[in-house]
Amino acid sequence: MKFVTAKRQGTSFVGVLSAQNEVVHLQMAEQAMGEESTLPHSLMECIALGDAFVDKVQEIVTWSEKQRAVDYVYPLESVQLLAPIPRPLKNIFCVGKNYVDHALELGSADDIPKHLMLFSKAPTTVIGHESLVLRHAHVTEELDYEGELAVVIGKKGKGIKEEEALDYVFGYTIINDITARDLQQRHKQFLLGKSLDTSCPMGPWIVHKSLIPNPNRLHIETKVNGEIRQKANTEQFIFPVETIISTISQGMTLEPGDIIATGTPAGVGKGMKPPRFLQSGDSVEITIEKIGTLRNRIGE
Amino acid sequence: MKFVTAKRQGTSFVGVLSAQNEVVHLQMAEQAMGEESTLPHSLMECIALGDAFVDKVQEIVTWSEKQRAVDYVYPLESVQLLAPIPRPLKNIFCVGKNYVDHALELGSADDIPKHLMLFSKAPTTVIGHESLVLRHAHVTEELDYEGELAVVIGKKGKGIKEEEALDYVFGYTIINDITARDLQQRHKQFLLGKSLDTSCPMGPWIVHKSLIPNPNRLHIETKVNGEIRQKANTEQFIFPVETIISTISQGMTLEPGDIIATGTPAGVGKGMKPPRFLQSGDSVEITIEKIGTLRNRIGE
Repeated sequence: MKFVTAKRQGTSFVGVLSAQNEVVHLQMAEQAMGEESTLPHSLMECIALGDAFVDKVQEIVTWSEKQRAVDYVYPLESVQLLAPIPRPLKNIFCVGKNYVDHALELGSADDIPKHLMLFSKAPTTVIGHESLVLRHAHVTEELDYEGELAVVIGKKGKGIKEEEALDYVFGYTIINDITARDLQQRHKQFLLGKSLDTSCPMGPWIVHKSLIPNPNRLHIETKVNGEIRQKANTEQFIFPVETIISTISQGMTLEPGDIIATGTPAGVGKGMKPPRFLQSGDSVEITIEKIGTLRNRIGE
Repeated sequence: MKFVTAKRQGTSFVGVLSAQNEVVHLQMAEQAMGEESTLPHSLMECIALGDAFVDKVQEIVTWSEKQRAVDYVYPLESVQLLAPIPRPLKNIFCVGKNYVDHALELGSADDIPKHLMLFSKAPTTVIGHESLVLRHAHVTEELDYEGELAVVIGKKGKGIKEEEALDYVFGYTIINDITARDLQQRHKQFLLGKSLDTSCPMGPWIVHKSLIPNPNRLHIETKVNGEIRQKANTEQFIFPVETIISTISQGMTLEPGDIIATGTPAGVGKGMKPPRFLQSGDSVEITIEKIGTLRNRIGE
């Protein structure tokens, strides 16, 4: 199942993609079933319901497929996709330098981390598929892309063991960890260079974990204006998803709706010779196997 | 005015300290005035109302002082103080190495920042005055304290000029930026070592900015088990509050309820020779002029 937060006629709603790639408005479908509405309004709150949410959606979809002439199923093109979690309840966790080749392109062998490197992006950075990324020309001359697999946590946990880590996952999405390289370098700690408004395109949807049994073996590719810049596979992770979840949760409680971007492969603009940073009008497309494509244009 | 989030008989509420240092339950006082309740339930939401909130509280307090035998004013000792903002809507922003002597005690002259160093603590770290800080012995051998002045943002802003920065402040509080030094060092980026559960004691209250015209001239002192460890004045800031707010907001929108810890002075446990880290049973007290004292004990 692919879960979306979408907007239609000015209102946002939680939906699921049908087998025909249409968007099913979950609350409306639930009402059409003649049931009292049990689903919350935001995908974040739905995720917090745990398996009960996924079971309910399965029931709605199965029922819905047998109906005809329904008014709660929309062509994908007719809705605006927002970020699946438009306003996370805390900063987005981000793993730094989780692919050897990326660590090397930005530095040397000394930059290959021996321990998980974790920083964050403010929730004010989040935008959806096809939304504009601000160019921020007054604060940065070095705006860069980073295509990344993102993990969405499904249940609360602390001290999670690696072998149980995937039980705590709700699903997976794509994040473009847009980075102002000059700010990142100048301010040492990454937060400022990673937290410009609109610097976290996310989506287009969250794919439920049942469709991705192994997140550590997914092809990932980033194109800028159609040109392939990043091409890798998450099997090249230094720290696989299980290690990331376990390491973070040893002293910190993870919560439903938490988002962890797993790091970017080689091929960022700063790593090119000479560097090629993002400019107004550029289009960035990140495609991850079994998830889809997240596309955003750089605005003024 | 000093604003608290407090708990009494199992329910939390927003309050203000009276001239007699008693806690006035704002929603109940408002009802006693015979008015329709206009105040939200959380201090975060109250702050977002802007000046209207402060004006309303002033009105409530003035009226309340003329009443007698009221049931919505409690002795300070009879309530449990929670963190004034128990669950911030994003990570707490933290400035690193904002006092020269602290940068020197943890490194050398090369560690004195030329540009603002900004990292964050997850919202799951926040606890109130007198709450227990977990020792986390299974993940760290080097738990340390950092007494800090914290700024609470009062209104939304981006691209804020230094000369207008204090207009965006709601008030000030105290934060103990508890740090696992071994994790901080091992993981390079600070987030993990700064985000252990309970590692952000905050409070005891937020002092409205009208009582602190100059946040860059406040005495600050930290005691461990009664022994003075940190003793400084915020006039020693490398980056004063105005610069911090302006720098952060150049590319990132600041929002009401955002919290910025301004960095710690020299005298942390790691800076001592030999280092002296926190152990179960230790008590840490941070006192800042015009605000008060935040006290927490280290638990198991």
